[in-house]
Amino acid sequence: MAPKACIVLASGHEMPLVGFGLWKVPRESTADTVYKAIEAGYRLFDGAYDYQNEKEAGEGIRRAIKDELIRREDVFITTKLWNNYHRKEHALAMAKYQNESWGLGYIDLFLIHFPCALEYVDPSVREFPAWWMDDAKTVIAPDKVPIRETWEALEDIVDAGIARSIGVCNFQAQTLYDLMSYAKHPISALQIEHHPYLTQAELVQMASENNIAVTAYSSFGPQSFLELPGAFSKQAKETANLLHAEMIKAVATRHHVLPAQVLLRWAAQRGIAVIPKSNDATRLVQNLDVLNFDLTSQELEDISALDRGLRFNDPGFYLEGYPLHIFA
Amino acid sequence: MAPKACIVLASGHEMPLVGFGLWKVPRESTADTVYKAIEAGYRLFDGAYDYQNEKEAGEGIRRAIKDELIRREDVFITTKLWNNYHRKEHALAMAKYQNESWGLGYIDLFLIHFPCALEYVDPSVREFPAWWMDDAKTVIAPDKVPIRETWEALEDIVDAGIARSIGVCNFQAQTLYDLMSYAKHPISALQIEHHPYLTQAELVQMASENNIAVTAYSSFGPQSFLELPGAFSKQAKETANLLHAEMIKAVATRHHVLPAQVLLRWAAQRGIAVIPKSNDATRLVQNLDVLNFDLTSQELEDISALDRGLRFNDPGFYLEGYPLHIFA
Repeated sequence: MAPKACIVLASGHEMPLVGFGLWKVPRESTADTVYKAIEAGYRLFDGAYDYQNEKEAGEGIRRAIKDELIRREDVFITTKLWNNYHRKEHALAMAKYQNESWGLGYIDLFLIHFPCALEYVDPSVREFPAWWMDDAKTVIAPDKVPIRETWEALEDIVDAGIARSIGVCNFQAQTLYDLMSYAKHPISALQIEHHPYLTQAELVQMASENNIAVTAYSSFGPQSFLELPGAFSKQAKETANLLHAEMIKAVATRHHVLPAQVLLRWAAQRGIAVIPKSNDATRLVQNLDVLNFDLTSQELEDISALDRGLRFNDPGFYLEGYPLHIFA
Repeated sequence: MAPKACIVLASGHEMPLVGFGLWKVPRESTADTVYKAIEAGYRLFDGAYDYQNEKEAGEGIRRAIKDELIRREDVFITTKLWNNYHRKEHALAMAKYQNESWGLGYIDLFLIHFPCALEYVDPSVREFPAWWMDDAKTVIAPDKVPIRETWEALEDIVDAGIARSIGVCNFQAQTLYDLMSYAKHPISALQIEHHPYLTQAELVQMASENNIAVTAYSSFGPQSFLELPGAFSKQAKETANLLHAEMIKAVATRHHVLPAQVLLRWAAQRGIAVIPKSNDATRLVQNLDVLNFDLTSQELEDISALDRGLRFNDPGFYLEGYPLHIFA
């Protein structure tokens, strides 16, 4: 049941091609959901400080290890550094803190969540400086921290044995080229928004040319944003649901699978890792089962042709008025 | 006749809103063209090492100074550092060399031409390592030079009195944010491809928020690329000419101006500097005359609505097979 397909990262470590995304998994059910996901065959869990459920995800994994469903080395843990901790000393402290939250000895992949440094907020003042909270103004004051400082902190985190591989999320090609000019440890992974409405073909090609593994987030496009409040979901609500698109449904019918599986397969078949989440046990199993059928090259192309450069996770859009035009 | 409108750069120096672009002006006629442009009222000349006519442009300006048409301080000279000279020592040497070529004592604005460092090619081996030449393979080997190293060279160039203001071309927002995190001298200017098919509204807004003056190149869109060889002009040839667009022509008729003037006014009225070139004396005068009429806000919007994210000056497109996905 567990997918065999892995990507060998530039660090030399293997990362599963299909994983479970922890974004929006409620804290109170995270441990159980993760445990069930392991039972279903998931071996990659994609977390972040921002998702506020690392401790609970770690609990689920530790319980599965205790019950001998898996060993630590069978599972791959990704997590991310939040924007307010980009300064070297804060990044180091957070990596240690997050690693302890997971409680699994080490983090497999540690990523810079966004290429934007925000002013430090001390955890004693505010544990979780989420930029999407109502009082965002207090926690998204930009700070001048060079990406190099944060990257070098991540390299120290690898050297200290806290993380095995490091990478970035939401970086554009120029930022990657610049990072490559001084990186001592390789950029193992790039996590980006990637679905048929936003294929980012040139960025994916650039990553491939430079041995940077790409992970797609929000594989179902607008679907991932519908449940979010206010401006975060506005664009998603105005956009046709990919899971209901006639072409996607026709491809699904042809292969006797579900539209969601088609969207995940479209990425995975091109070597792009996917990290769907589901709080539903049946869908959780279905989302994992995307390595046992092949789309035709025409189908891959037809799906890619839906591209319209439509980005949903753009703080420049949903945090209107804040100086966060990071995708311009 | 000379346009009064200027932009005050972050450096404190003033830059005219309308200038003359030296790209594709033949070397042999450059001095005369520049002289005539000064007679017509141009006070900004936008050059680059890449255009290979700096010496001749300087000759035209010096002749106009000698003939007492202008004084040195009446004219604003922009030029750019080519990709093969990003290392600190090469950037410094090139700034000195280019400043001597112009022969005007100092450069007003010195820009990094592209955010991609290519391997150094010694001028004794090859004076001009243009990446669009037939044997491009020999001169576009990427080099690992952090943007910070090049930027710090530009800051030294200011401190040495060689340039008065510095900036960049073709940078994305992420690269600008990172640059701002360590810049000691302000980023005075950002030069980007900007026309109704590629408005880059969010990047323009980001620049504005950070007091970075924007200069538009290729204001006429595909028109600027038609005369280029092979892959450079392919996309332009397949795209409807903006100067023939019915809507642009209608706006032009309404204001008793030419379509080219509408396109330049559309940028300039929003505070974006323009640098059209023309080898034709009449058009040269017309292009300068874009400050004496106002488009309505509806007209500005209608023109902006032509945006389709269509970029013509993309090495990832026209240098297919080379690792230069700098706009992904």
